[in-house]
Amino acid sequence: MSDHPTTIAFATDYGLADPFVGVCHAVIASIAPDTRVIDLSHGVPAHDVRAGALLLADSVAYLPPAVLLAVVDPGVGTGRRGMVIAAGPGDAAPWLLVGPDNGLLIPAAAALGGIAGAWELQAEQYRLQPVSATFHGRDIFAPAAAHLTRGVEPAALGPALAPDALVELGLPEPTLAGDRIDAEVLQADGFGNLELNLCRADLEQLGADEGVRVTAAIGGRRHLVVLCRAFGDLPSGALGLLEDSVGRMAITINGGSARDELGVEPGAAVTLHLPT
Amino acid sequence: MSDHPTTIAFATDYGLADPFVGVCHAVIASIAPDTRVIDLSHGVPAHDVRAGALLLADSVAYLPPAVLLAVVDPGVGTGRRGMVIAAGPGDAAPWLLVGPDNGLLIPAAAALGGIAGAWELQAEQYRLQPVSATFHGRDIFAPAAAHLTRGVEPAALGPALAPDALVELGLPEPTLAGDRIDAEVLQADGFGNLELNLCRADLEQLGADEGVRVTAAIGGRRHLVVLCRAFGDLPSGALGLLEDSVGRMAITINGGSARDELGVEPGAAVTLHLPT
Amino acid sequence: MSDHPTTIAFATDYGLADPFVGVCHAVIASIAPDTRVIDLSHGVPAHDVRAGALLLADSVAYLPPAVLLAVVDPGVGTGRRGMVIAAGPGDAAPWLLVGPDNGLLIPAAAALGGIAGAWELQAEQYRLQPVSATFHGRDIFAPAAAHLTRGVEPAALGPALAPDALVELGLPEPTLAGDRIDAEVLQADGFGNLELNLCRADLEQLGADEGVRVTAAIGGRRHLVVLCRAFGDLPSGALGLLEDSVGRMAITINGGSARDELGVEPGAAVTLHLPT
Repeated sequence: MSDHPTTIAFATDYGLADPFVGVCHAVIASIAPDTRVIDLSHGVPAHDVRAGALLLADSVAYLPPAVLLAVVDPGVGTGRRGMVIAAGPGDAAPWLLVGPDNGLLIPAAAALGGIAGAWELQAEQYRLQPVSATFHGRDIFAPAAAHLTRGVEPAALGPALAPDALVELGLPEPTLAGDRIDAEVLQADGFGNLELNLCRADLEQLGADEGVRVTAAIGGRRHLVVLCRAFGDLPSGALGLLEDSVGRMAITINGGSARDELGVEPGAAVTLHLPT
Repeated sequence: MSDHPTTIAFATDYGLADPFVGVCHAVIASIAPDTRVIDLSHGVPAHDVRAGALLLADSVAYLPPAVLLAVVDPGVGTGRRGMVIAAGPGDAAPWLLVGPDNGLLIPAAAALGGIAGAWELQAEQYRLQPVSATFHGRDIFAPAAAHLTRGVEPAALGPALAPDALVELGLPEPTLAGDRIDAEVLQADGFGNLELNLCRADLEQLGADEGVRVTAAIGGRRHLVVLCRAFGDLPSGALGLLEDSVGRMAITINGGSARDELGVEPGAAVTLHLPT
Repeated sequence: MSDHPTTIAFATDYGLADPFVGVCHAVIASIAPDTRVIDLSHGVPAHDVRAGALLLADSVAYLPPAVLLAVVDPGVGTGRRGMVIAAGPGDAAPWLLVGPDNGLLIPAAAALGGIAGAWELQAEQYRLQPVSATFHGRDIFAPAAAHLTRGVEPAALGPALAPDALVELGLPEPTLAGDRIDAEVLQADGFGNLELNLCRADLEQLGADEGVRVTAAIGGRRHLVVLCRAFGDLPSGALGLLEDSVGRMAITINGGSARDELGVEPGAAVTLHLPT
């Protein structure tokens, strides 16, 4: 793989209050001084593997070919494996994904075109020694990613893993029946927009077009929500349902926080009733 | 413009909990791999165009010549225009400012020496396709800034705009009369210092020198505030009024948070009475 | 010193909501465009010099040789000195540490092998002019660090300081007596783990091995805490005491926040009773 990526895209649930992210940057700079690191986000909610997996899958299309280094790892120090995945369409597989084998990397690998190979991170010479029980980002994952940007072959990091033996997350699917959709809040962004596990195509399948008023049952109450295109199409303070920047439908309030207004959190059930 | 900047200085109200900033970095790295990005701040309060405008105007003096990429954009997806401004003294204009036409960029352009030209961001080939209705930072502004650092001419991005047709913000001015000043809290920093729309020259104009005790009416209560030079000139717990790092007067408490102590927020009125 | 570092590692208590960190990056890029900056952390609790000193001392082992630029500086604008320290084993001293003379840099210098020399930051030509009374990070420390990465000699920045005249922090030591340890919570991380001023060697000295159940008196209540190796060795919800990633013992809860659960903050006393 002489055509290895020389950029690392980095995402974690470490937050930026502690030095965990900075220390991983330090480790990378020590091993691979010329490698560029793009911080995708370190604000994944703590231990929320699903939120991290969605973030990665939704972001890869915007990156140059890279080693994706991702750590959301509630199982650190237990038997869960660390791994590198080669991903991409066909045999080219110019992307490498490094992180725990807990489902975090699988949706991104799928978005990139599928898994071409996977290897467990076992080789001692590509780890920091001694390996701590609590910070594999620093001791195993960041060193592996850094070595990969210097041209180390993924297969040199450890034994091959069967792609169908990797841990997968179940992402919740909406239920569509007649004029009713049962969906779920996947996540909320910093502006308070509530992203649902729902696409515009789902709504169109039920005949819902722009301007339609939907009744939404959320958190035990009913709200009128207008299907719209942009925040600015809504009267100030009105609830809208619009396609967000990664292609999912989100509940929004023009000039406010839908999360605060409705008092709901990721995981909440949302039932939509379309006009008949 | 063979002398185009090759650095991007980047400021938004996106926060760092979501991947919005990271995705814009990804877009820039995909288009202009050799461009350096300096993150000025992504902590502008959400949708607070005035706070963003102050941040940019107060920061540009410390930057090397750059493309300033700024997004505080409550009107995203509506008719408000995106634009690039060339700014600088005389005809040189080595700076380029990219963002929405909502007033955000104007004080920084003035601080840089004035507007030499402005163009609307319309050219389809310099946008990501399809353009979303909610994330022009990713789809329009970051791509435009990245292309500018590769030498694309601002005029290639779209039709010229008349500088005097750009949206301007009204920044509040203090009222000075006799021994009384009516001012306003412009913003609070993370240490709780309360910055006023007031300069040392305003106080000197009324004859107030260092050491003077000013009566300040804030949030319905009166406080004694000492005009001082540094935090350390104050007794612990005492209120002071000092020139902050961008040249505005700020209310501060040595060893504490004036914001918390006084319980006031940006926008609050502050009336100062000087001793007679 | 032709062998000067060309990387800056940067840590402060500025937070990322304000543009303070970004402006320092701007200053560095203006003076030393080719210098790489690694942000270690800007989340040191405001004015907490001890927390900053621990962060630096715990991080330096992971960095490439660098200019360490650190600002936690409650005494800014008072008589406290600014300084640069050369640190390293023997006479090599490839590291330079820039910051206030308030104890912040001393534990890191010790971790690097000791202080080889120290100089006060006085030379006007290596400061931004005018020097503000409140933001020496921008006006004195960042410029000094940037010039050092361009090969300016530390001795050119000002007069030599005697290493034994520098301000030192007293870090709290635990008391070990029989089956009892009196310790203190040094800091809490973003996951809520509570780090003590205690090492595994302290516990082993008292004969405590893995699996031992310790009685911990914290915040006026008694808890059973299991001495363990990794988060995953604990039943969900159980309290554990494990060696954290920098080699100190931390109180943790598997899948939760020990800080929230126990309701204690850094500085709290923790008394451990080992089984007899």
